[in-house]
Amino acid sequence: MRSIYCGQLNNTHVDQTVELCGWINKRRDLGGLIFVDLRDREGVVQVVFDPDVAGLMDSATGLRNEFCVKLTGIVRARPESQINKDMATGEVEILGKSLEIINRSEPLPLDFNQKNSEEMRLKYRYLDLRRTEMSDRIKLRAKASSFVRNFLDSNDFLDIETPVLTKATPEGARDYLVPSRVHKGSFYALPQSPQLFKQLLMMSGFDRYYQIVKCFRDEDLRADRQPEFTQIDIETSFMSSDQVRAMTEKLIADMWQELLNVDLGAFPVMKYAEAMTRYGSDKPDLRNPLELIDVADLMKDVEFKVFSGPANDEKGRVAVLCVPGGAKLSRKQLDEYTKFIGIYGAKGLAWMKVNDRAAGAEGVQSPVAKFLNADVINTLLERTNAQTGDIILFGADKTNVVNEAMGALRLKVGLDLELTDLNKWAPLWVVDFPMFEEDDEGTLHAVHHPFTAPKDMTAAELEASPASAISDAYDMVLNGYEVGGGSVRIHNNDMQAAAFRILGIETQEQEDKFGFLLDALKYGTPPHAGLAFGLDRLAMLLCGTDNIRDVIAFPKTTQASCLLTNAPSVANPDSLVELAVAVALPEKESEK
Amino acid sequence: MRSIYCGQLNNTHVDQTVELCGWINKRRDLGGLIFVDLRDREGVVQVVFDPDVAGLMDSATGLRNEFCVKLTGIVRARPESQINKDMATGEVEILGKSLEIINRSEPLPLDFNQKNSEEMRLKYRYLDLRRTEMSDRIKLRAKASSFVRNFLDSNDFLDIETPVLTKATPEGARDYLVPSRVHKGSFYALPQSPQLFKQLLMMSGFDRYYQIVKCFRDEDLRADRQPEFTQIDIETSFMSSDQVRAMTEKLIADMWQELLNVDLGAFPVMKYAEAMTRYGSDKPDLRNPLELIDVADLMKDVEFKVFSGPANDEKGRVAVLCVPGGAKLSRKQLDEYTKFIGIYGAKGLAWMKVNDRAAGAEGVQSPVAKFLNADVINTLLERTNAQTGDIILFGADKTNVVNEAMGALRLKVGLDLELTDLNKWAPLWVVDFPMFEEDDEGTLHAVHHPFTAPKDMTAAELEASPASAISDAYDMVLNGYEVGGGSVRIHNNDMQAAAFRILGIETQEQEDKFGFLLDALKYGTPPHAGLAFGLDRLAMLLCGTDNIRDVIAFPKTTQASCLLTNAPSVANPDSLVELAVAVALPEKESEK
Repeated sequence: MRSIYCGQLNNTHVDQTVELCGWINKRRDLGGLIFVDLRDREGVVQVVFDPDVAGLMDSATGLRNEFCVKLTGIVRARPESQINKDMATGEVEILGKSLEIINRSEPLPLDFNQKNSEEMRLKYRYLDLRRTEMSDRIKLRAKASSFVRNFLDSNDFLDIETPVLTKATPEGARDYLVPSRVHKGSFYALPQSPQLFKQLLMMSGFDRYYQIVKCFRDEDLRADRQPEFTQIDIETSFMSSDQVRAMTEKLIADMWQELLNVDLGAFPVMKYAEAMTRYGSDKPDLRNPLELIDVADLMKDVEFKVFSGPANDEKGRVAVLCVPGGAKLSRKQLDEYTKFIGIYGAKGLAWMKVNDRAAGAEGVQSPVAKFLNADVINTLLERTNAQTGDIILFGADKTNVVNEAMGALRLKVGLDLELTDLNKWAPLWVVDFPMFEEDDEGTLHAVHHPFTAPKDMTAAELEASPASAISDAYDMVLNGYEVGGGSVRIHNNDMQAAAFRILGIETQEQEDKFGFLLDALKYGTPPHAGLAFGLDRLAMLLCGTDNIRDVIAFPKTTQASCLLTNAPSVANPDSLVELAVAVALPEKESEK
Repeated sequence: MRSIYCGQLNNTHVDQTVELCGWINKRRDLGGLIFVDLRDREGVVQVVFDPDVAGLMDSATGLRNEFCVKLTGIVRARPESQINKDMATGEVEILGKSLEIINRSEPLPLDFNQKNSEEMRLKYRYLDLRRTEMSDRIKLRAKASSFVRNFLDSNDFLDIETPVLTKATPEGARDYLVPSRVHKGSFYALPQSPQLFKQLLMMSGFDRYYQIVKCFRDEDLRADRQPEFTQIDIETSFMSSDQVRAMTEKLIADMWQELLNVDLGAFPVMKYAEAMTRYGSDKPDLRNPLELIDVADLMKDVEFKVFSGPANDEKGRVAVLCVPGGAKLSRKQLDEYTKFIGIYGAKGLAWMKVNDRAAGAEGVQSPVAKFLNADVINTLLERTNAQTGDIILFGADKTNVVNEAMGALRLKVGLDLELTDLNKWAPLWVVDFPMFEEDDEGTLHAVHHPFTAPKDMTAAELEASPASAISDAYDMVLNGYEVGGGSVRIHNNDMQAAAFRILGIETQEQEDKFGFLLDALKYGTPPHAGLAFGLDRLAMLLCGTDNIRDVIAFPKTTQASCLLTNAPSVANPDSLVELAVAVALPEKESEK
């Protein structure tokens, strides 16, 4: 019905007759003329209705915002004085010749000229998506997936679909379950990832597989999590972890170049241990210049138990952040930071303001200074390279508490004091993760998943010292977000059985849950490795937003609800009977 | 680890040193040499291990089928006499220089040299997929989806994802339900199609949307159905049904040209009523030349009630198939056909063999001839253009029974007597479906879905005579398979409310289930139309198989089970408690 999109018009179209379809974005009446901005997917153009054009003003007078119309008109150049440089089509306007109102609109429940609550935006999502800001995001996301597919297609990857109705796997998050009508009493699980299927595809010899695929995690939701999310899932045979990293790094670098015209440069590679030491995080935001500096050696003999305790504990850490310009932080702000790190289990925040660096230990102001002798303070000032006006913030506790608390504080202070350069892009590979981590009960858990291969180790060596084993895994981090992660997989039956044993997965359980995988490993499995990107997070970064819901057309709330359709909802009782399930609410309604 | 795929080698590579990775497909020992066929994703190449190459024979001797190996060797031309023309790489062979056995293999539970049961093939799917026939299918399917995406991307379609965890909709098939842990007692439904979301995207102004997306139907399964299937989902604004058909026809025609080098030609367009009259089916296989011919007018006054009854019934039909060469059918075969049409509710199969066409009524042989006078028989012979050696098969019953039974018989006889040209491609559009169909209780149901627009009708006209309303819907049929279907959608609130009323969806139910859609229709909805293809069926046709499981990497059985992973399975009781559901098996275990 249209000959061109509104947003594509420019002065090369002058004098052409065009047919446009779209929505009334704005209307102004001026000197007997009616001006409207007509909007479609590609942009907005100004239309003028002139009483000199016969039989047009009656319908034009009736136009209101968001009416859907079809319009025929002639493109004309605007007079020099009326050119609108803020508008892509601002050099031209359309002189209306005929107008058909296709569909009227009631006044919208959202006001496009002001900020609407997220609740209203989600309830009327189809209207919120009319806003250029939102539709641009959805379009950029579509471009991103298209780019990924073209890149992978041209590198001989095969797009192969794996099942959505599948079997529960123990991947550290809760499964969504789906009752079966045919097999009453049994359930399918929605996949947390196509992990096992993509490994099986390598065993089939497909060599290079990818899929852009929905995955599901019934976890407690956080701001950047959705119950369903989209993964760019990649698996290859006969490639080393270096090769997989090189290829997927090129994918992301090319994408940023193509879609944002940004050169990400070569991605630095950092070992997990170094990332934890320097940033207290395995996904450090390198746009932030602050680093943790270890000072346990200085604190071993101080009187202050809060420092000396962790300093003498093998599992403890004492580290500081030296924050340039931080001496200006008020007591109130420091109290807030203390509260903030409390979320991560830190019991307090010691600080030291450097009021006069030249004065050494005499020039500092700190509630803990009295516990530290001048030598300690001077060494501290030197080691941190502190300058007048800086503040030194102390973390002293179990290593994991210090890392989490000071890692989070580093990010917060970096933003608050504008030390983090938000205009930069900071990509990074983190590698050499431990295979396993120990929980408080001393049980080992897989840091990635139980199919990750150790680096340069036999099955016997792995079983002999699992706690110190390093995995052949890698995470891609961008601006402090983990955007992708992967590993070389175990391709050998003995090694896989050893990994299961270390994780306390007993033989019967192995057989029940992974029998088919262990079976498959007997038949000439190729070495294989892969990586999965979170498309939602990539899209979020591409769009420059920090709200993952902004890049999903129909997202759910943090309570996993869809405000538009009111899902989830009460089921038809007959359906439940057919599925052989019953609702069994906890006894106390309050527990809900 | 490889420098080239095995299957890519040819005589341009002679004298090159290559590195190959793959599986031992076959091994032969001959005159002190060891010959193996090495297989990878792209094909097979012959490798020779020669004792003259030092240190190689020890490992080569250990090679068994399906071992995964890495091999370095030199490409050499085969002597003229040893060229294998049945093999793509048959002009060359590789002289092995070094060999690494990456992974051994036990003897496979499948024998690639013979037909394995489908049960074994599904249980060991990852091995079955190693067969070239199977991997070629999966590769062709990947090419097909890639082709679709490129076509749609280059036509300005946006790939936009819609939710998988969504709200139940009443689309004629049972929903899979997913209990919510956060909202205990509530359920998500897996989508039968993204119908409402794609319409909402048009309301948002995205103009051209597509998605290749999993959909779910908990229906009783048939051979060509899977509980999860993949839809190529397309929706556009401001396009007529003709334009949508033209574009999607081009998509399929271009795909067949590109992937199979087949010219499908222009697709004929047939009205639903004509298809039912001529073929007893709304998805006729036009490779089959047989047509139903109405003869009710001849049978109104005959003594034989089986014919005269339906002939005089407004809802009855009497029609014949004249089958060339069918007179040779034995009594036994005719009995089998009688049984076959019994499945569709037909009570018997009358037949008439034309033994001597020149003899007119005297030349036929038929148990029912005695009820028909010579005039009737002669007119029948003329109208069907019967020739000596043909058989005329009669269908007389309620119209829908005749259509179903004779439509199915037409297909069966066409195949049995080799009248259907299996080397042909027969595409077709079927259009002008009725809006509604009446069930035995006289209740109206939507033939497509409740959002389909009627053709050239106001809401008032639709409500006045729903039974005769024609919808603006279209199905694409290929070789007797419905490969795609779509319609112009209702874009007006009054019309949608009227359609719901006709379908007996009451105001409260409208509000509960579709409130958001009716709401959305108030805000300047554009005219929109779309179509969805079944990717599995398209892939099946492209691959020349009639088993849909052959084009799905990990399909389920007709009992909706995955034999590989044993899904569905019993759930962890703790998970069920958390999800607030309990298994409630029917009282009698036997009902299961």
